[in-house]
Amino acid sequence: MSIESLESLRDHLRVFAKDRDWDQYHTPKNLSMALIAEAAELVEHFQWVEGDQSHLLEDKTRSSVEEELADILIYLVRISDKLGIDLYKAAERKLEINARKYPADKVRGSAKKYTEYEDKHD
Amino acid sequence: MSIESLESLRDHLRVFAKDRDWDQYHTPKNLSMALIAEAAELVEHFQWVEGDQSHLLEDKTRSSVEEELADILIYLVRISDKLGIDLYKAAERKLEINARKYPADKVRGSAKKYTEYEDKHD
Amino acid sequence: MSIESLESLRDHLRVFAKDRDWDQYHTPKNLSMALIAEAAELVEHFQWVEGDQSHLLEDKTRSSVEEELADILIYLVRISDKLGIDLYKAAERKLEINARKYPADKVRGSAKKYTEYEDKHD
Amino acid sequence: MSIESLESLRDHLRVFAKDRDWDQYHTPKNLSMALIAEAAELVEHFQWVEGDQSHLLEDKTRSSVEEELADILIYLVRISDKLGIDLYKAAERKLEINARKYPADKVRGSAKKYTEYEDKHD
Repeated sequence: MSIESLESLRDHLRVFAKDRDWDQYHTPKNLSMALIAEAAELVEHFQWVEGDQSHLLEDKTRSSVEEELADILIYLVRISDKLGIDLYKAAERKLEINARKYPADKVRGSAKKYTEYEDKHD
Repeated sequence: MSIESLESLRDHLRVFAKDRDWDQYHTPKNLSMALIAEAAELVEHFQWVEGDQSHLLEDKTRSSVEEELADILIYLVRISDKLGIDLYKAAERKLEINARKYPADKVRGSAKKYTEYEDKHD
Repeated sequence: MSIESLESLRDHLRVFAKDRDWDQYHTPKNLSMALIAEAAELVEHFQWVEGDQSHLLEDKTRSSVEEELADILIYLVRISDKLGIDLYKAAERKLEINARKYPADKVRGSAKKYTEYEDKHD
Repeated sequence: MSIESLESLRDHLRVFAKDRDWDQYHTPKNLSMALIAEAAELVEHFQWVEGDQSHLLEDKTRSSVEEELADILIYLVRISDKLGIDLYKAAERKLEINARKYPADKVRGSAKKYTEYEDKHD
């Protein structure tokens, strides 16, 4: 098996679910729950470490983090497939929104401005 | 702008953060928090609807769901970049683990077996 | 040990953290991460079951669910203590907000109205 | 209205849901989703700030944080009520588990030992 694109991952996941008769459980609602559960496992790895230390992972933790990231991608691709949403187009649109929402010259280098600016423009 | 691969999204996000001097905030720890916050916005859209109705989205909700999915992808790509993790390789590895963990003939068509099977083999 | 109020739980948790020198890790930021990780473990128990079946828990699951609920309460009390926030007063205030936000005669019996009403009044 | 105990909060929430005919939506599954969505709103307030700054909240943020904490408590009490789980007893049991799992003399003052110790004894 070789995954080289979101499409190949999507196709693989379709077969995987079909072979197990799991489409019945893969409603967007259920998949959103599965996705956040994986996101939380990611968060858990970082909860007691300092931010500036959080890129330094021991081998075992790094391997677990890789698994959580893979799980998030898997559920993200699966829910997008079920909803007929094109992730790349959605990302493009969001990047355009973000470019307008956070103009570089207005928000540069400040976490404070970051959120304040968001608040004012939401 | 055109996003056609995870690599192009990654590159775009690098420039976006650099232009705003936001790399200082983009620790894996902080990014994991941002990711789960977006995952929760996704969950919120589905919390009061029935599972079998959850693929039926009104236009406004559909548009919001698309944004949340994009945000999740964005933070997922960003944290993977910061950790030097290849998402496709991670997905490949996870799919192989899942194939061993959930043999089709053992878990077919049962949510009960689904989790039970997992419990016994974790 | 007997926990009979949020105050006694708070006091117990203070001693527990002090005895382990864990206050250094118990920043509101870190505690919010720990709390959501526990909330996700709760979600995980319900992700593949139907809503109307979700109150029917096998003994083993029920026992795990109890632990997750306890963990959520523990981190909730701990973060409130660290921020000097009175949970009962906060709940009182929120109930008053909700009573205004969701007038019974306007939103009765409809999940659709439920969220729509919220959207319009947010 | 005055909330002075988890019981009075529980009773208030029962009436609130009944008046709106919302019990039909308040399955444990749905309530777990609502709870994690609120937990994520809490996380969001802390995602770009340093841990040691995260107790310093501006008035507006503090007021929002209070609301999120109240919402978490509300859904926690509601789901416990729906499942017939006594939160104080659950907390007592969990504190006893934690006392055995994290002996003060073994884990004192080290986040590293904190998680390592947990890994070895899970």
